[in-house]
Amino acid sequence: MADKTIFVLNGPNLNLLGTREPEVYGRETLADIMARLSAAAAERGFAVDARQSNHEGELVDWLHAAQAAGAHCVLLNAGAYTHTSVALHDAIRSIKVPVIEVHLSNPHLREEFRHKSFVGMAARGTVCGFGADSYLVALDAATRL
Amino acid sequence: MADKTIFVLNGPNLNLLGTREPEVYGRETLADIMARLSAAAAERGFAVDARQSNHEGELVDWLHAAQAAGAHCVLLNAGAYTHTSVALHDAIRSIKVPVIEVHLSNPHLREEFRHKSFVGMAARGTVCGFGADSYLVALDAATRL
Amino acid sequence: MADKTIFVLNGPNLNLLGTREPEVYGRETLADIMARLSAAAAERGFAVDARQSNHEGELVDWLHAAQAAGAHCVLLNAGAYTHTSVALHDAIRSIKVPVIEVHLSNPHLREEFRHKSFVGMAARGTVCGFGADSYLVALDAATRL
Amino acid sequence: MADKTIFVLNGPNLNLLGTREPEVYGRETLADIMARLSAAAAERGFAVDARQSNHEGELVDWLHAAQAAGAHCVLLNAGAYTHTSVALHDAIRSIKVPVIEVHLSNPHLREEFRHKSFVGMAARGTVCGFGADSYLVALDAATRL
Amino acid sequence: MADKTIFVLNGPNLNLLGTREPEVYGRETLADIMARLSAAAAERGFAVDARQSNHEGELVDWLHAAQAAGAHCVLLNAGAYTHTSVALHDAIRSIKVPVIEVHLSNPHLREEFRHKSFVGMAARGTVCGFGADSYLVALDAATRL
Amino acid sequence: MADKTIFVLNGPNLNLLGTREPEVYGRETLADIMARLSAAAAERGFAVDARQSNHEGELVDWLHAAQAAGAHCVLLNAGAYTHTSVALHDAIRSIKVPVIEVHLSNPHLREEFRHKSFVGMAARGTVCGFGADSYLVALDAATRL
Amino acid sequence: MADKTIFVLNGPNLNLLGTREPEVYGRETLADIMARLSAAAAERGFAVDARQSNHEGELVDWLHAAQAAGAHCVLLNAGAYTHTSVALHDAIRSIKVPVIEVHLSNPHLREEFRHKSFVGMAARGTVCGFGADSYLVALDAATRL
Amino acid sequence: MADKTIFVLNGPNLNLLGTREPEVYGRETLADIMARLSAAAAERGFAVDARQSNHEGELVDWLHAAQAAGAHCVLLNAGAYTHTSVALHDAIRSIKVPVIEVHLSNPHLREEFRHKSFVGMAARGTVCGFGADSYLVALDAATRL
Amino acid sequence: MADKTIFVLNGPNLNLLGTREPEVYGRETLADIMARLSAAAAERGFAVDARQSNHEGELVDWLHAAQAAGAHCVLLNAGAYTHTSVALHDAIRSIKVPVIEVHLSNPHLREEFRHKSFVGMAARGTVCGFGADSYLVALDAATRL
Amino acid sequence: MADKTIFVLNGPNLNLLGTREPEVYGRETLADIMARLSAAAAERGFAVDARQSNHEGELVDWLHAAQAAGAHCVLLNAGAYTHTSVALHDAIRSIKVPVIEVHLSNPHLREEFRHKSFVGMAARGTVCGFGADSYLVALDAATRL
Amino acid sequence: MADKTIFVLNGPNLNLLGTREPEVYGRETLADIMARLSAAAAERGFAVDARQSNHEGELVDWLHAAQAAGAHCVLLNAGAYTHTSVALHDAIRSIKVPVIEVHLSNPHLREEFRHKSFVGMAARGTVCGFGADSYLVALDAATRL
Amino acid sequence: MADKTIFVLNGPNLNLLGTREPEVYGRETLADIMARLSAAAAERGFAVDARQSNHEGELVDWLHAAQAAGAHCVLLNAGAYTHTSVALHDAIRSIKVPVIEVHLSNPHLREEFRHKSFVGMAARGTVCGFGADSYLVALDAATRL
Repeated sequence: MADKTIFVLNGPNLNLLGTREPEVYGRETLADIMARLSAAAAERGFAVDARQSNHEGELVDWLHAAQAAGAHCVLLNAGAYTHTSVALHDAIRSIKVPVIEVHLSNPHLREEFRHKSFVGMAARGTVCGFGADSYLVALDAATRL
Repeated sequence: MADKTIFVLNGPNLNLLGTREPEVYGRETLADIMARLSAAAAERGFAVDARQSNHEGELVDWLHAAQAAGAHCVLLNAGAYTHTSVALHDAIRSIKVPVIEVHLSNPHLREEFRHKSFVGMAARGTVCGFGADSYLVALDAATRL
Repeated sequence: MADKTIFVLNGPNLNLLGTREPEVYGRETLADIMARLSAAAAERGFAVDARQSNHEGELVDWLHAAQAAGAHCVLLNAGAYTHTSVALHDAIRSIKVPVIEVHLSNPHLREEFRHKSFVGMAARGTVCGFGADSYLVALDAATRL
Repeated sequence: MADKTIFVLNGPNLNLLGTREPEVYGRETLADIMARLSAAAAERGFAVDARQSNHEGELVDWLHAAQAAGAHCVLLNAGAYTHTSVALHDAIRSIKVPVIEVHLSNPHLREEFRHKSFVGMAARGTVCGFGADSYLVALDAATRL
Repeated sequence: MADKTIFVLNGPNLNLLGTREPEVYGRETLADIMARLSAAAAERGFAVDARQSNHEGELVDWLHAAQAAGAHCVLLNAGAYTHTSVALHDAIRSIKVPVIEVHLSNPHLREEFRHKSFVGMAARGTVCGFGADSYLVALDAATRL
Repeated sequence: MADKTIFVLNGPNLNLLGTREPEVYGRETLADIMARLSAAAAERGFAVDARQSNHEGELVDWLHAAQAAGAHCVLLNAGAYTHTSVALHDAIRSIKVPVIEVHLSNPHLREEFRHKSFVGMAARGTVCGFGADSYLVALDAATRL
Repeated sequence: MADKTIFVLNGPNLNLLGTREPEVYGRETLADIMARLSAAAAERGFAVDARQSNHEGELVDWLHAAQAAGAHCVLLNAGAYTHTSVALHDAIRSIKVPVIEVHLSNPHLREEFRHKSFVGMAARGTVCGFGADSYLVALDAATRL
Repeated sequence: MADKTIFVLNGPNLNLLGTREPEVYGRETLADIMARLSAAAAERGFAVDARQSNHEGELVDWLHAAQAAGAHCVLLNAGAYTHTSVALHDAIRSIKVPVIEVHLSNPHLREEFRHKSFVGMAARGTVCGFGADSYLVALDAATRL
Repeated sequence: MADKTIFVLNGPNLNLLGTREPEVYGRETLADIMARLSAAAAERGFAVDARQSNHEGELVDWLHAAQAAGAHCVLLNAGAYTHTSVALHDAIRSIKVPVIEVHLSNPHLREEFRHKSFVGMAARGTVCGFGADSYLVALDAATRL
Repeated sequence: MADKTIFVLNGPNLNLLGTREPEVYGRETLADIMARLSAAAAERGFAVDARQSNHEGELVDWLHAAQAAGAHCVLLNAGAYTHTSVALHDAIRSIKVPVIEVHLSNPHLREEFRHKSFVGMAARGTVCGFGADSYLVALDAATRL
Repeated sequence: MADKTIFVLNGPNLNLLGTREPEVYGRETLADIMARLSAAAAERGFAVDARQSNHEGELVDWLHAAQAAGAHCVLLNAGAYTHTSVALHDAIRSIKVPVIEVHLSNPHLREEFRHKSFVGMAARGTVCGFGADSYLVALDAATRL
Repeated sequence: MADKTIFVLNGPNLNLLGTREPEVYGRETLADIMARLSAAAAERGFAVDARQSNHEGELVDWLHAAQAAGAHCVLLNAGAYTHTSVALHDAIRSIKVPVIEVHLSNPHLREEFRHKSFVGMAARGTVCGFGADSYLVALDAATRL
């Protein structure tokens, strides 16, 4: 059933969701959102393996793990590493599991250093700007792959 | 019932869909995709008003029209104008109807001059990279607004 | 009496004046402003031919028309095309009628991509930053030519 | 006989040829040049379909039309849109009819913003710098394809 | 009556007006222009306090003085300091008196290093390109504030 | 008494202090400096929680920990991550505890890639250039907050 | 006792402190701050020689004067000249008296043209972002030199 | 009869034509092409003086020689020197004989460092993108001068 | 015998060697290559201490460990961190053990963001482009130090 | 005899010559050099009017004064203002007296921000790199004008 | 036996080795190094054909000659042309013989204009930074091809 | 007497002096100028060895020759190679003979690509802008070395 699992990898500072700049990111915690996402996935017959780390290297490790686990796809909200990490870019290209870039806010509406996306330059597609619903919209995309 | 209408505006060269660089954009025609999208929207109780133009100014006109019609939201695939049009950027900011940026392919995987998005710098959110399914995923986002 | 006519050409999104970002552009509609301008011009013995289009090419056509009509001068508020349109730049240089660049707001106070002006690089002069009064100040300049 | 037709598409401000900056562009009108070109083409057994528009979108439409008409090739003098239009770039790549970029003057001898060519980045080849004869030289190239 | 006084501050090299590059700036002296401006202002019930300095710091001092004097507004032709002076930029933002940027010529028609305006990035509005009449047009703008 | 604790977070390579390029950084070890700092803080009634890591993610974790611990403030010498880490930038903005950027040397006197500071773009203030005394000067700032 | 004197040089617009953009700079006047600083310095056995000028050249003169007077060090808040003055940069390098850069606000939190510091590229160290307390923190640094 | 001679100067690596990257440049040798060109020129009453060198300086010498020989014009395919040689640029401007830039491929379709043309910034016109036929098309242009 | 040990540090994604983009990197696994390298080193009297991590901070730790262990030299294939890590740059400069940069492929033949090397800006030398043999060639260099 | 006078204008920090970074600028004082220059000029029948100021505006004033005095030419060592002053650039272009740019050191051997010369972009010619002898070499040039 | 010959091509100024900046390049002459290299190659059954030229065109010629001679590979130390020569770049791509880039010093440790390598953008691999031993290390790489 | 010889090396296109763009360079031939220079040098007890080449490599050779000949100094007018040649830059740094950069015109008054000087970044000093007299002024500098 591995190919019915969707990895959801969350990057730096997302563990603070619900407390950090709520006018930008909303008040739901990451656990709340992951629970909501898991329920929605379950309805469609998918399991969610949700993780969070502030470490770039750990996110790389987990992309490899998704491949090893034969995951259906990865939803990756790499947070700040989106804009600086060639290592994540290479990791995405190193695995066969499709990766979908997710962001709560629309990075193009924020500072210019958030307009460049090393993740986007390797990912299958992108969903951003819908707050916590971005994960659910990305789930919709994931189930269509 | 105007607020149950979703405008779907398609920009330059999208009328050639199905013949143009099919390895990038797929073989479905724009009419095929719009039909599929309308059906999916109808299931959720929305009507689709789909249009295509190669004229930057006409797309600006239609964004104004969406506002005048009290549309629920706009799905905008501005094609090449995405990357050069300050006029579309201003039009999006001039109206209250939310606009969702849509692309068939992931622009970050293509030439560098497609990495800048004047549309993205004004839109609510973005869905890209899922081929024709990008419209359906964006519809999912639209119904969550 | 053609040489007593002043063309006033307004570019994309200006038809929304009065509703769009009123804190930047004010609440008067374009029709209100054009009426006020026509009255002020009439006092000085000039007629105003005011037009608006969201189409870059139509603005180019109208600059040609101003030349054909032997207009006294053109007040051009090219809106967003100010910053991207080499075609308008060339059109201004192609005609002998003097062109005065007009803006409601001061573009230098806004985003950096509005600091470059292809219109300004061809126009006789510029008036900007006085809201709707920019047209009246530009009229003052026009009558001094 | 469609494949014996050559589309000749002329962009913004070229309708003013003969009056505009004659020291740069010469004094022949566009009609004069197109007539001379048609005669030269006829000698070689080709028909010319010559058009001019100040609208970027209309040029995109006509490139599509050339494809639909089964034209032998397109001579495209996109004028100022040469330097800013990703839409024309995409249109050229969207069709199978070969496109030859034409300019009266040599853009590299003019302002730096004319050194970048989105048309040239998609076209088969370029002929520029020979005044009105650029069209005739391009015709020579077209008949060799 | 302080609020009926308009400060007119002229920057470096403007004391040479009438002798310096007259093909760019005209042959009137600065004194001539200021006299003409004072007369026009008097007709509208305003007094003009006209000054000139080649010193950036002195122009900063005088902007402060305009504030202290309760001036109606400042017309500021900062000459070359327009393009390099963050100090003038800050001074304009430090005072409540509105500042109108004035130039005899249109800087966008000159060298590229004159296209950036630190004054314009803080001023209320700009009038440029009408030769000595730029001051009179700016006066028109000033009286509308 | 949590609000009397000052976190002092030291980034990559600072564990080598006293051996690494001593002509740039001095010969005191990090432990020496932290001891000196703790003593000075104790005199003012503050406790110091000093840590060092070569891992960007761990520094992010510790910024979160400072928030959780209700720390008075954070002195952050992020070393090389200062110039590349958007993740640290976001972490600083995610917490309410004020963060003071500290450097032993003055980065502006070193290579150009050290002139950009993602930490400085989020921090309350900066103290740099005083060698090991930078920490003591920053302590002085911290106690004034 | 010259070597017990600390020069405190304040640049353009700082004479307006207390009235200018108080949300950025606070409501204390420069005289207030200098008095507070003098008192704190006196406690440590130092005299303060505080000056303010809107003239770049005068600040250069005073840096030379600090050297001639055998001052202990200079606290330099060069205001807007920080970002544009190579002359101040050279002056700092021309004298042996150490110079400490001071700013009320953190320039990295403001516009991008305030991110470059010609003063910082020559100074011993920097203290910024603590409002008026920046001077007191810098005094702490000065007494440790 | 000197003015009936056309110099054809070929730059670095063109001696390898027919063997080098044939998918880009075709399989004809340079000698083949020059022979074909000479025959075509002879039909129009022109002689061809064809040369090739890998040395930038020799190409400069030959441009001078073309002037000394009273040549009708020069067809110059400067190869890689096109993009780097200010010396060739100056040589073209130093002589009165018109120079036509020729390329087999369209440089705008290749790497970005081939988009800049020092030759094009001095030449009368350009013909490129038609393979070996570029020389014949350029001959057509040459005979129209 | 510590000074007969060569540390071989491998960065992110190199653990996937043999499966990842084999047309770029070959089909040998990292373990295969390290074994081959150890054998070759043993022939020359050196021991190899080979490690791999996806964590930037761990690579920094290991560079410090090489110093502490008195290693003969370090062969460092930092993978993607090569292009983004100032921390590794500093770590190399912090230790006395010479570091040799190694890459399987030639980064200059790949995307432009791989052309900058923070590792190369600190390392003793570089060997790249020879596939797995790059390690063996670097070993040859190491034994000559 | 005014036209036998050579103005020698020295900019910021040159008053410190002989004490400032002597390894770059030598140990002669400015007075020493000016005396040596006056003597050499006298031999050729010229008087020298030597001045120094740290104020940009004063250097502008003095360029105007040179014009008013009918000076033969100006030797201008603008020091740091060379690289930042558009005002000096304009002043040089405003006067008819030829200006020769002088530097003790060769700015191209120093920091990159000294490679741009607004003075050089307006001056007749430049002499630099010969230490104090630069003035004497420039005198040689001045007497040849 | 042609395929047992290794061409070693040395570019500009390398003939001065042993006298030029010995702190950067060492004191061995080029002849010394080539002799040492030939001996090492002979041990492995290869002949060395070593050449040096200050002429870019001659280096291009010799790359062609290596191809004509059926050489095993080329070691190319293009010196300063490394950073500026598109012609060498094209020559390397024009031949089938593999080319290895060699440098005595590590260009990334020197001026920024030495960080770009047109040779590296076409070569098989690179060896640099080991002084004269770079040639020997490159020989090791060459024998593994 | 070798150390009484001054090498005068002239670069590309200078052999055309007197015919090329005389409004920029004057009508004297290079032979005329060299004769005038030789006479002036002879008066001061120096011999001139004047050469001209269009080949970058030959200019490098001659700089080496100047060193071998024990020349007093080199006057180098590298023409267009000034702006592109790292090889000449290195050659100047490779020899001990001082090199003086000479230009007839002032490059800063010409196109922007002539503002960068690789020669100036290595030379002792520069003399430019005095037409043919630049050589004589440089001779004055040379005799002062």
